[in-house]
Amino acid sequence: MTQTALILFGHGARDPQWAEPMQRVQRAIQAREPQRRVALAFLEFMEPTLEQCVAQLADEGVTSIRLAPMFMAQSGHLKRDLPLQVEAAARQHPQLSIHIAGAIGEAPGVIDAMAEHILALD
Amino acid sequence: MTQTALILFGHGARDPQWAEPMQRVQRAIQAREPQRRVALAFLEFMEPTLEQCVAQLADEGVTSIRLAPMFMAQSGHLKRDLPLQVEAAARQHPQLSIHIAGAIGEAPGVIDAMAEHILALD
Repeated sequence: MTQTALILFGHGARDPQWAEPMQRVQRAIQAREPQRRVALAFLEFMEPTLEQCVAQLADEGVTSIRLAPMFMAQSGHLKRDLPLQVEAAARQHPQLSIHIAGAIGEAPGVIDAMAEHILALD
Repeated sequence: MTQTALILFGHGARDPQWAEPMQRVQRAIQAREPQRRVALAFLEFMEPTLEQCVAQLADEGVTSIRLAPMFMAQSGHLKRDLPLQVEAAARQHPQLSIHIAGAIGEAPGVIDAMAEHILALD
């Protein structure tokens, strides 16, 4: 049986508060679908790293991961760093398939929500 | 008469494609409210800088700016770099008031849209 998980993959920052919006997205997903396995992972400054996160999910028996990059746009981090990290994780866990989605800031629904929020600022 | 403008303030990147989602947010705002003045500005790698953008808006007669940080979360960039740049711009254009909003990734509507998008990935 395929066991699936989502990874919300963020840049990370020195300030621990930085991860809060990602944790809120994680909770919003789990409020809608409590049975989902949703993990966070970070490119730098924060843990777990992607390697640590994938190892944990593999230990749990996960065989299919969908990774959502929590970035405003495609950048060098997503075009170069992330694929290298995903390839390394896939080599360590050959039973796992990992699919990388587009940058969350490029999703049409997210773009609309950003526009609505900004127009409601005054 | 107060003349207002919005600035979408992003990190910037070496890759020119990086700015596309911000341009899409700009167009989504203008599709909803065509009379709005909506400008983009960048912290690094891209132009206009905030200084250049504010000078342009001041030339146009804008007296009140609302700045929306297009960042996933509050980081050192928003806590330290941005306030310094805004103070410098305000000193150069004392007729202008500039209000900084929270990071767009922290807006509840944006968080919900991110969660919905991720759940729809499979």
